[in-house]
This record gives sequence, structure tokens and C-alpha cells, in this order.
Amino acid sequence: MGVQEAIAEISTFLGQRLSRSKSDLNLHGRSESHFPCSPPNAVAYPETTEEVARIVKACAKAECAVIGWGTGTSLEGQAQAFQGGISVDFSRMNRILAVHPEDMDVTVQPGVTRESLNEDLRATGLFFPVDPGANASIGGMTSTRASGTTAVRYGTMRDNVLGLEVVTASGEVIRTGTRARKSSSGYDLTGLFVGSEGTLGLITEVTLRLHGQPEAISSAVCGFETVGDAVQAVIETIQMGIPMARIELMDPASVAAVNAYAGMDLPERPHLLLEFHGSDAGVGEQAETFGLIAAEHRGTGFDWATRPEDRTALWTMRHNAYHAILASRPGMRALVTDICVPISRLAEAIETTRADLEATGIPGPILGHVGDGNFHAILLFDDTDTEAVGKAMAVSERMVECALALGGTATGEHGIGIGKLGYMEREHGAAWGVMGTLKRALDPKGIMNPGKLVPPDS
Amino acid sequence: MGVQEAIAEISTFLGQRLSRSKSDLNLHGRSESHFPCSPPNAVAYPETTEEVARIVKACAKAECAVIGWGTGTSLEGQAQAFQGGISVDFSRMNRILAVHPEDMDVTVQPGVTRESLNEDLRATGLFFPVDPGANASIGGMTSTRASGTTAVRYGTMRDNVLGLEVVTASGEVIRTGTRARKSSSGYDLTGLFVGSEGTLGLITEVTLRLHGQPEAISSAVCGFETVGDAVQAVIETIQMGIPMARIELMDPASVAAVNAYAGMDLPERPHLLLEFHGSDAGVGEQAETFGLIAAEHRGTGFDWATRPEDRTALWTMRHNAYHAILASRPGMRALVTDICVPISRLAEAIETTRADLEATGIPGPILGHVGDGNFHAILLFDDTDTEAVGKAMAVSERMVECALALGGTATGEHGIGIGKLGYMEREHGAAWGVMGTLKRALDPKGIMNPGKLVPPDS
Repeated sequence: MGVQEAIAEISTFLGQRLSRSKSDLNLHGRSESHFPCSPPNAVAYPETTEEVARIVKACAKAECAVIGWGTGTSLEGQAQAFQGGISVDFSRMNRILAVHPEDMDVTVQPGVTRESLNEDLRATGLFFPVDPGANASIGGMTSTRASGTTAVRYGTMRDNVLGLEVVTASGEVIRTGTRARKSSSGYDLTGLFVGSEGTLGLITEVTLRLHGQPEAISSAVCGFETVGDAVQAVIETIQMGIPMARIELMDPASVAAVNAYAGMDLPERPHLLLEFHGSDAGVGEQAETFGLIAAEHRGTGFDWATRPEDRTALWTMRHNAYHAILASRPGMRALVTDICVPISRLAEAIETTRADLEATGIPGPILGHVGDGNFHAILLFDDTDTEAVGKAMAVSERMVECALALGGTATGEHGIGIGKLGYMEREHGAAWGVMGTLKRALDPKGIMNPGKLVPPDS
Repeated sequence: MGVQEAIAEISTFLGQRLSRSKSDLNLHGRSESHFPCSPPNAVAYPETTEEVARIVKACAKAECAVIGWGTGTSLEGQAQAFQGGISVDFSRMNRILAVHPEDMDVTVQPGVTRESLNEDLRATGLFFPVDPGANASIGGMTSTRASGTTAVRYGTMRDNVLGLEVVTASGEVIRTGTRARKSSSGYDLTGLFVGSEGTLGLITEVTLRLHGQPEAISSAVCGFETVGDAVQAVIETIQMGIPMARIELMDPASVAAVNAYAGMDLPERPHLLLEFHGSDAGVGEQAETFGLIAAEHRGTGFDWATRPEDRTALWTMRHNAYHAILASRPGMRALVTDICVPISRLAEAIETTRADLEATGIPGPILGHVGDGNFHAILLFDDTDTEAVGKAMAVSERMVECALALGGTATGEHGIGIGKLGYMEREHGAAWGVMGTLKRALDPKGIMNPGKLVPPDS
């Protein structure tokens, strides 16, 4: 690949905004995953769609890899430059382009982060609910089909992206979708680009569906004697149709870690963290129904947080759980698993995982967006200890096999990147080949984030 | 194309289930649209996925067109054989394969109709909400990304299909999606096939998301002085976040037609037809809030129907509105328009359409799924009167132009087929070319439902 040729051409129009500083390259070679630093050859900081199109055209001409970059919080190596190339950092494309409060939608550039978007929206009475924990960029969240704690109520990025502007692999600028709430006008290109991890094109604009800030919000914590009890309560809650805004599981090891990290004193037993959104009366009714279900499953200490600051503390604790778990074993690295199963099989999947962790001796606190059937075991290991690394990898692989055997998926929300590439054929069979066909059709030179998601020969 | 060659081969394994009877061919050349009868050369009645795969392989070898057929209720010519070929009628693949009440999903063969599915589900406490009016097949609804009266609450087929089994253009059988509620495992192939109108493959199995039958349902009718008042009430209702199950508009001409057809006596003014789903208390709260909004917009005669038989009568009236409108002008044909706009522009779109109808003198009662910003004018004309036909076509075209100018789409739910092909470039620009690229990649011989949806040279 002619990366030097691409760099020479891109420099002519980006000037100082094409960076080759060592620290910048290293920063763009890392992520929050366990993959080694793999820096690009240069980092481009475009400010307009036209500049992105020129960058991609230069890369296409030089047959040089081009990789989108949001905030570097992906977990499967999606934005790392394993084959070198040009990293396109969208941090300077971070404007909110149009808010339409009456239509409950907003159009943003990809570099806008979800927290800054919600700050900007506050006065409108609307909010953007998708919350993967990290303050990720909207472009990155779109590219990885992110979800998180609120997907059980508000859906994932798949459900909340109305339309896109995309620079294709040839440098052409296209628009997908409209601001209408529904359409049956041709192939769902929006859906095809959401979750494509930059392998089909670079997203330069995103139109998002917004939701009304709920009239009333209340949060709660509820302890259970066993993970099985907690999960059964979740299953019944979902089946009853209670429109939970959040319903999250922490197992005893996770609770211990957040207690130590955040100075909390929750009993070291499985807990559900809950949030209810609705009218005053609606929230009361939901909570009451949930309380009855929890009581049937020996739920205890059903503790309320209606004050905003208490709610914030609760969800900050949840969002920091990953860091709390890492901090509980200083010096260890984490492999974050991410399986998702039909909810009727959730208890079985978690029990199988816990038994495997126990047998293997790998610490693996479990956290989960259990309303969706999605959970993570945070596998901890000393990465200089090859035996421990091997054991953690083997647990991770068996978790995926368990998920697939139960009718689920290898990744509920973290995506494929390179980390899950090895499971794609098992999960999709011949359909993975169809993904490869689409990739070759839309990116015949294979320049868009090569080595990720599709079969290696695509 | 070697259609005779394909027929000879398919006969060897389908025997009598490959029909060439004149009446059968004509039946499969028609639809509920205004397009002329365009029969296929033969109609295949497969009973298994393997048979579908063999049919497609035979057609691929002979380079013969293959067109999926559900119940023939599509409105843009999607299932008509304008270039001849083999029509694949899924009526013998009408089994419900697996119901998972705990996971609230069901896997069905494509020939199952939505009414028979809901009959089968009744005892489970679950239902499948997508309701386009016609008793369409699930395969057809999936292929055209159908929606209808309940999309405002439960979404369209896009939101309710979890996974598919598809026979691709080469006769390969693939599976897309899983039964997990979410996944970020690669390209969203499910989403790509939903709404692809049989141009990329034939759907042989569909896994659908189900919903809990609501504890309480109540319906209501409410009259307004002007369409503008009614639409403004809808806009505020949606913005308030009232989770309407249905919110439908009938203009005075539609009301007159259903009065005559169904022996009703609604005042001849604009009406909203509403349905609320929820708990007893929730439904009461929703209705009360709606009542306040309606009163602010001079809504009158807010009339309740909580008894199931009254509700059924109300929605039967709505579903028969198309036939009522046709019956109001005996001998005339209908062109059913289907634009969808951001809801803030809905009043403007309807007013523009009404003014155009008035100026042109074409009768065009308006009905709409207005909670989604989607409405239909049923344009009536004598199809032997070329001037009237031309005028109706011109109104339809101006409606699409209006929708696109307001940030909407040429079709909210009826799809493209051949009827909306002429608007694709205007709506999608270069993205239509990307659709053509995908078509060529997945169906290089162009045998899957040729002449529909994608650019003619794809």
C-alpha cells in the first residue's frame, strides 16, 4: 500500500492537521482493549465532509488503509491500525448541526460525544438515551452499533439512527434515510452502515431519534440471595411488559469491587440496579409491580433513589464498575466478554459461565444488561503469565460457544473488530461469506479498516 | 432467459406443484395495485426451504426470473411478473415453527398470514402487532417492510424481525440474526433483506419479536373542525410521549365514504381514530391527557369504545376504508399514494395535497397513520379517461416532491416495486447507485424479481 503517497497528498490540503507525531500515532494505536498498541502512519483531523472525501480519495488512489477514530473507547480493536494506514480522527467534526425538537430528532457530526450532546439538548426537554458507559462519540457508537444500560427501553443505535451521511470507499458522499419516522423506500442502507465498524465507509453525519425527558425518574437497588433469583426476577419483569429504563445485574464479585472503589457498602450479594421512567403515577405503578416480583424471588433491601444526586451516584458507580474491577486486581489486564442470549436462557448462560470461571480459577466479576439477555464477565489476568492468558482466552471462547448453543450471539454490543473475528464463521456460517461479498462490492480495494469484521480474503 | 429450461427442471421435483394453468398464472399476475395483469410463466408451490433452494438454483442455471408471492396484496407491483419467470407461491409454507413465549418471539414460515399467526398466539398472552390492514403473509410483510396502524407504538417490520432464513440468488441457504434481543455481530443482514422486495433472495423463515397482549385496551373516535386541528392534536400527543397504540386520521371525504359503506353516522368532518394500550390505570391516564390536548384543538364527540365488539367495529371500519372509498365512486380505479414526512411538516403536507386535489378536481380522500407522519390520498379516476389518469399521476408525483422537499420519503410503507421506481434517484441520489451495487453483488445474474427497486442497469 502506498501510504507515503497518501500522506504526501493529504498533507497538501490538511497541512498541520495531518499529524505524524509519535505521541499522536501511539495514542491512535491504542484502545480500551487488551490488544497491543498498533499505531497508524498518520492521523488526519478533517473539519468537513469534503475533507473526509478528499482523504478517502487519496487513500483509494494510493490503496492505503483508512480507519475512523472517535474517542478510542472500543473494546475489540475496531479503531486500531493493525495494518498501518491513515487514522481519521473526527474530534474536529463535533458540531450539532440541527435540532428539531418538534420532530424529536437531531443531526450531528460524528465527533460529538453523547454527554456533550445531552448537555446541549437539556433545555429542549429531549435526550438521547443510548448509554454505553464511556463518553463515546456518536460516530463511533453508530459504527459499532453500541447500546448499554438503557437499550432495554430505548433500543440500541440500530433503533435510534434515522439517517446518515457517509463517505464511501471511492470517496463519494451519499445520504441514507430521511427524517421521516419510517420509510419503505429501498434497501435499508442506514442499517447496513450502522455496526459496519468503518469497513464500508466513513460516517460524516448522523441523524438521531430523540426521546422526551421523562416526567418522573426513580432508581432502585435490590439485593438477591442468588444470581438465579435475580435473573428470574428480570425475566418476569420483562415478560410482564414493565417498561424498565434500566435493569442491570452485578454479581457479588462486582459488588465487592465497586464497594472498595466507590466507598459503598452494598451487601456482597447479587444486586439489580433499576431505573423507571414515566409519569409520576406510571413510575409508581412500575416500581410497585417490580417490588412484588422481586419479593417473590427473595429480593431484599429494595432501596430507592429519587433524588437526582443519589441516582447519579448509583449510575456513576455502575459505569465505573469496569474500572473498579480492574482496580481490584492491580497490575492485571482485562478481557471483557460480551455474550447475549434469549432471556429464557440467561440464567443458564450465567451459571455456566460462573462454573467455568470457578473451575478455571480466573477472576471474572459479572455485570450485565440483563434485560436484553446481555452480560459481561470481566476476565482478569496477568498478561505476562501465558498460562493465565490462555485460560482467560479459553473461558472467553467457551462463553461464546455457550451463547451460540443457546441461540444467542458472540457480542451483544462490543462488536467484532479483530477480537471476535474468530467467532464469525461459527455464528453466521455462510452468511459471513455474504458479508464478505458486500464488503468487496462496496470497498473493492479493501482500504476501509482492513482486517476487521469480514472474512480475511474479502 | 431460459424459462422453459427452468420449468422443465423444476417440474422434475415439484411435479403438480409447478402450475401452468391459465387461471393460476393470471392470479399471480395481479395485485391490489392499478398495474395491468402480468402473469409469470409458471407458479411453483414449494413446501420446504430445500425445494425453494432447488427452484432458485434451477432459475440461476437457466437465468430465469424468480419472484416471491405471498397473498398478492402489495400495492406497487412488487409481486407481479412484468418480465415473466417463475412465481414462488409460499402458501404451502405456512407453518408456525416455534413459539417461545418466555422470550416473546416466534419463528414462522413466510406463508403464515398475520391474522392466522395472531389466532395461534392468542392463548400465549402475546401478539404480533404489525397491522397493514390486509391479511398479508409474514414473508410479504417482511419483504416490503410493511407497517400500518400500530407502527406508532410497536414499530414496523424493520423493528420486529429478529432473524431470517434466506435462499440467496445462487440457491445458498443462509441465516441472519439470532434470537438474542440485540447483537453487534457484523453487518445487519436481517435489516438488509427486510424491505428488499425479493430482489436479493427469497425469505424462507422469519423470527419475529412478539409483544404482551395489553392488560387494558380502549379505543376512541374524536372529531375536529379542520384537518389542521386534528394534525396539531396528533403532533402534541406524540411530543408529549403518550404511547399511542394507534392514532389515525380520516378526512371528511373518507368519513363520508365509510359512513355510506359501513352504515355509520359519523359527522362529516375530520376524525382521529385512537387506541390506547396499557394497564387499566395507564390507559385511563393516556386517554385523559389526550382528551385535554384534543379539547385545546376544538376536538368534539370524544367517543369511547371499551367493549371488544365496538373496538372491532371501529377498526374494521378503518381497515375497510379503502374499499369504502373505492365503492364511493363505482367503476373508478384507485392510485394509493403513501408519503411520510417529519411530523412537524405533516399539516403542511396534507394541506398542500388537499389544495392540489381541489385544484385538479381529482377525488382523493385522505387517510393516514398520522402518528408516524404517514398518509395516503386515495386518488380515484376512470382509467379509460387518459386526462384523468394523467392528472392523478401528476398529483401523485407532486405529493412525492412535496414529501422530499419537507425531508420525508416517497413511501412510508408500500414500498417501491415498479410504482415508485421513478422517484428513487430523486430521493436517494447517489445512494440509489449503492443499492444497485449491492444488488449486482448479491444477484449478479439479475434473476431475483428483476425490474424492481434498483436502477434498471443493476
